Amino acid sequence: MAIDTGRLAAPVEPSSAARGTYRPLGLRDVRVTGGFWADRLRTNHDRTIPHGFEQLQAVGTLHNFRLAADLATDGYRALGMMFEGPFPFLDSDVYKWLEGAGWELGREWDDDIAASADQAIGLVERAQRDDGYLNTFVQVLRGGRPYTDLLWGHELYCFGHLIQAAVAWHRALGDDRLLTVATRAAAHVDAALGPNGQPGIDGHPIIEMALVELYRVTGEERWLRLAAHQLEGRGHGLLGPGRFGAAYWQDHATVRSAPTVAGHAVRQLYLDSGAVDIAVELGDDELLEAVLRRRRDMVATRSYITGGVGSRHRDEAFGDPYELPPDRAYCETCAAIASVMLSWRLLLATGDPVHADTLERTILNGVLSGVGLDGISFSYENPLQRRTHRVGEEDGVPERSPWFPCACCPPNLMRTFGSWPAYLVTTDDQGLTIQQYATSEISAPAGGGTIRLRVDTGYPWSGRVVVSVEEAPEAPVRVGLRIPSWATSATVAGPGEAAHEAGGGRGAAWTRRWQSGDRIELDLGMTPRVTRPHRQVDAVRGCVAIERGPLVYCLESADLPAGVELEDLRVGQPILADTKRDDIAPSVVGVHVATSSNDELNAVPYFAWANRRQGAMRVWIPTGEGEQSA
Amino acid sequence: MAIDTGRLAAPVEPSSAARGTYRPLGLRDVRVTGGFWADRLRTNHDRTIPHGFEQLQAVGTLHNFRLAADLATDGYRALGMMFEGPFPFLDSDVYKWLEGAGWELGREWDDDIAASADQAIGLVERAQRDDGYLNTFVQVLRGGRPYTDLLWGHELYCFGHLIQAAVAWHRALGDDRLLTVATRAAAHVDAALGPNGQPGIDGHPIIEMALVELYRVTGEERWLRLAAHQLEGRGHGLLGPGRFGAAYWQDHATVRSAPTVAGHAVRQLYLDSGAVDIAVELGDDELLEAVLRRRRDMVATRSYITGGVGSRHRDEAFGDPYELPPDRAYCETCAAIASVMLSWRLLLATGDPVHADTLERTILNGVLSGVGLDGISFSYENPLQRRTHRVGEEDGVPERSPWFPCACCPPNLMRTFGSWPAYLVTTDDQGLTIQQYATSEISAPAGGGTIRLRVDTGYPWSGRVVVSVEEAPEAPVRVGLRIPSWATSATVAGPGEAAHEAGGGRGAAWTRRWQSGDRIELDLGMTPRVTRPHRQVDAVRGCVAIERGPLVYCLESADLPAGVELEDLRVGQPILADTKRDDIAPSVVGVHVATSSNDELNAVPYFAWANRRQGAMRVWIPTGEGEQSA
Repeated sequence: MAIDTGRLAAPVEPSSAARGTYRPLGLRDVRVTGGFWADRLRTNHDRTIPHGFEQLQAVGTLHNFRLAADLATDGYRALGMMFEGPFPFLDSDVYKWLEGAGWELGREWDDDIAASADQAIGLVERAQRDDGYLNTFVQVLRGGRPYTDLLWGHELYCFGHLIQAAVAWHRALGDDRLLTVATRAAAHVDAALGPNGQPGIDGHPIIEMALVELYRVTGEERWLRLAAHQLEGRGHGLLGPGRFGAAYWQDHATVRSAPTVAGHAVRQLYLDSGAVDIAVELGDDELLEAVLRRRRDMVATRSYITGGVGSRHRDEAFGDPYELPPDRAYCETCAAIASVMLSWRLLLATGDPVHADTLERTILNGVLSGVGLDGISFSYENPLQRRTHRVGEEDGVPERSPWFPCACCPPNLMRTFGSWPAYLVTTDDQGLTIQQYATSEISAPAGGGTIRLRVDTGYPWSGRVVVSVEEAPEAPVRVGLRIPSWATSATVAGPGEAAHEAGGGRGAAWTRRWQSGDRIELDLGMTPRVTRPHRQVDAVRGCVAIERGPLVYCLESADLPAGVELEDLRVGQPILADTKRDDIAPSVVGVHVATSSNDELNAVPYFAWANRRQGAMRVWIPTGEGEQSA
Repeated sequence: MAIDTGRLAAPVEPSSAARGTYRPLGLRDVRVTGGFWADRLRTNHDRTIPHGFEQLQAVGTLHNFRLAADLATDGYRALGMMFEGPFPFLDSDVYKWLEGAGWELGREWDDDIAASADQAIGLVERAQRDDGYLNTFVQVLRGGRPYTDLLWGHELYCFGHLIQAAVAWHRALGDDRLLTVATRAAAHVDAALGPNGQPGIDGHPIIEMALVELYRVTGEERWLRLAAHQLEGRGHGLLGPGRFGAAYWQDHATVRSAPTVAGHAVRQLYLDSGAVDIAVELGDDELLEAVLRRRRDMVATRSYITGGVGSRHRDEAFGDPYELPPDRAYCETCAAIASVMLSWRLLLATGDPVHADTLERTILNGVLSGVGLDGISFSYENPLQRRTHRVGEEDGVPERSPWFPCACCPPNLMRTFGSWPAYLVTTDDQGLTIQQYATSEISAPAGGGTIRLRVDTGYPWSGRVVVSVEEAPEAPVRVGLRIPSWATSATVAGPGEAAHEAGGGRGAAWTRRWQSGDRIELDLGMTPRVTRPHRQVDAVRGCVAIERGPLVYCLESADLPAGVELEDLRVGQPILADTKRDDIAPSVVGVHVATSSNDELNAVPYFAWANRRQGAMRVWIPTGEGEQSA
């Protein structure tokens, strides 16, 4: 089998033999050059990633690698403890940070980030044992005996993140230091728990998708086999019921048979991401269909309007269908990121634009809310309601925090934003489709040459997108633009006499011989709109949400007159209008809400909530219809 | 100070010097002789308490005492484990069972229960160390070093239950074997953590109220001082934030200053029960008022219609005001029991009938739902909704289970029902008030002699209560009947020419020279009624509940036609009518619900849910008003 290695700098790169509708571009091919996303990526580069390294140092997460490498002998460090010891998966924070730094350096070199990364990579290299094993918790605190606690030990989980970091450094920078470490670690797993080893899977999936990428990078089929072996090992009771029941870690049914998403949301979505990777490489339609079946169920019955998933705090789980409380929405930042990872894989595999829609809703609402506008404060949970009278101590964590005892979310954001441009465009043999809108420059192989496009847009504040051709090959190339499902109106104007055609019912595409200077203009209606909930969602019955373009809005107590409490408001049938909200951040468009009871309210984008004084917030607002008066 | 000891067989017996409006009667003075409660108490005696002892044997909870007593050397036993070991508080299950057995034997001797109890008491005696310390977890698994983990170790919590068991055996049976053990244990605590010991309080309150009762039984003021010392130690950071924040164990503010209930519901209500006991014994009005303030807040903003409390699974906590999800209602059975304990104390202390109302709502709905009609299956959580499509594995526990890894609830039910008759009547210098209705015989000191009454009623199915005087002293005696706040209509007829007077606005009372054969007849309107939620309760907006008398009703899928799912029903403005439901249990009155859409539904009492095939249930039913159609 022929394998392309290092062609793209992208977090997912199917082999040339893989099945699928679309193929990705990478960070060298799609450059965000201005506007909304350029600001977010700038903050990630300048603030978030340096902050992350500081935290890894301050908390001791990096130091634990020194202990494992016998470079220090003082105690194992952690920001917080479980009942009887530190979390066993802290190594993954370092790996995720390294992955983020790798993509980021591939986009834009930075001596300081590179120096920090060199320090971390050096420690990772030195902490690895001669036999390839590497886990600071086990090496320092558990006598170095591997795989004695597959349920909760997270050893393969940590390896998965190590491999993903290694893949990032290989693809983005051609730097294979981590790849050497990761390959040796994978070999250790293969020997112990591979097809010829003992039965055993990890309580927390991720190694499946990591191993497929390792296969793609190295061309070694043993990693694909190991990935499939781990995946197929689930659902046979190897993990047992544990504390929360077998569905918690998706061991209640095989990956092929489980009808719906279940249990811990991040685990389910990482697992299904790996399943898609394996399915496309092996041409396994049954496996892909199993994931799609669960995905449809999730989007229909267990997703918040923000794209967030996970309704339960106790076990970080999805919960029952239509169990979608706004106040106790768990909506872990990592679960939203995992959903983006799965959406992207399904879009590449199937070409179905529904996955691009889900991806957009999730990244702009459920993911982006996970980091403050300052870039250095994070939320682990992303609820859709906070009440006025909350007892802060009861919740343990404030809305945003510089780091967490379980710090999975912050570096997960870093790696997501670090690789974000790779999610904007898909290609196929006919040309390319712009899936997400950002001011950017796109360069793609097409028509036997290269097509170069410039995208100018004020998205997501403005619905106008202008695509300009800067260079094109002689041969005809298809250029497609996704029309988001939220768009109640959309007009497109292509070059001259060219006809436009619907793609998937919701796109516009032109296939032609392009000239430099050709333009496509897309105008998406950005009128704010009122959204009513599905009637089965008990928790928000009698409420409406406000949306504008791809963004979900919310009311915050910071925008209410003194003495008015958010809980007392009823909006009736509100009249909505745009309003400028430079007080939140430059360019932000708010929504002015005129209610039947003559209240004048101002909604802000949900992703920007909790950036002012602590207070109440709600996405779903009671109309007051059919309600008893106070 | 003069102390009465052993006068009553009741779980709360204020000293003669205590402040308060009412005083209790006991199990020797109030005998339930028929009807609804007689059936429940019979089940407790015949099935639940024997079942409990079997479970303590089968799970190994009793065996752990053998280990501590060096009568066995095999391993410590438990039904389930936390992440890294058994729960540390399993001893309390034995003590609570013993308390239940003690009250029960006081009501009705039983050779089998007595033999089981003798076996347990013998093991408890032998497991106690010479220095008075006793905790099987610490003695067997932690090297016998006391009080090294006050946050999670539950040592004082276990002692609290030991003391309460000892008090029960003393008061109900005059048997002081456990009292000897308990007094020595209390002395060990006093030396270590008393006024002259080290600072330290237990992560789980209960020892406060237990010590007050020990004081009442023994007359030794040191136990009252130790109780007050432990109580006042809270809120000064001795426990710290722990895993869930300081409010989790009420260490965020002092007992005198905390404005609202907060954190773990059982902890809060046990603590406040102890605070009332201390307040009435010390005449400490400030302390009593602090509890009343929290109680008012709890009833107004954080209580379910069932009387259940605790909205959050993660930390078994109250949650924010009006955060009352029906599906994820935690409503631990123990929290409802703790609420009954606090209601009773506040009724005695203040005479305010609101506490009798809360007690009634809670015992008949939130507590009684915690045990199946079979008496040997229990629910730990008591939600107000279960959806049709639930993934059983995700929840870990089915609706009802014969026992739990953390088995606090089942023996808590046993001791509550074992002492239930003591909660029916209050006395004061003028006479007595019947607070809860059951077919019963009441004998109370009054008017310089004894008054004996017989109560005949079909309560809670029927609203008719007939009180007959069987014996009366010469002097005038006040006989009061509480009129529950749920009663939209109530008629009373007293003897002959006597006037009746309102008590607390909602009672009826006659003060007169009674003759044998005098009767009082009370008729409470039992028309089923529709209840709308408070408008701030987001989770049940647009829904109604059905109540009849003191009972909350629910719909269960077992009563729906095939193919109809509970989630699809809308009731509009329903028309309600009584219906016989002998299929659930003899005498049960159901509610027939005719909806605007011509559905004919049948609601059953909430306490009787989950006694048929597993399925969906809901208390709050959408009306459909103002909702989008499907």
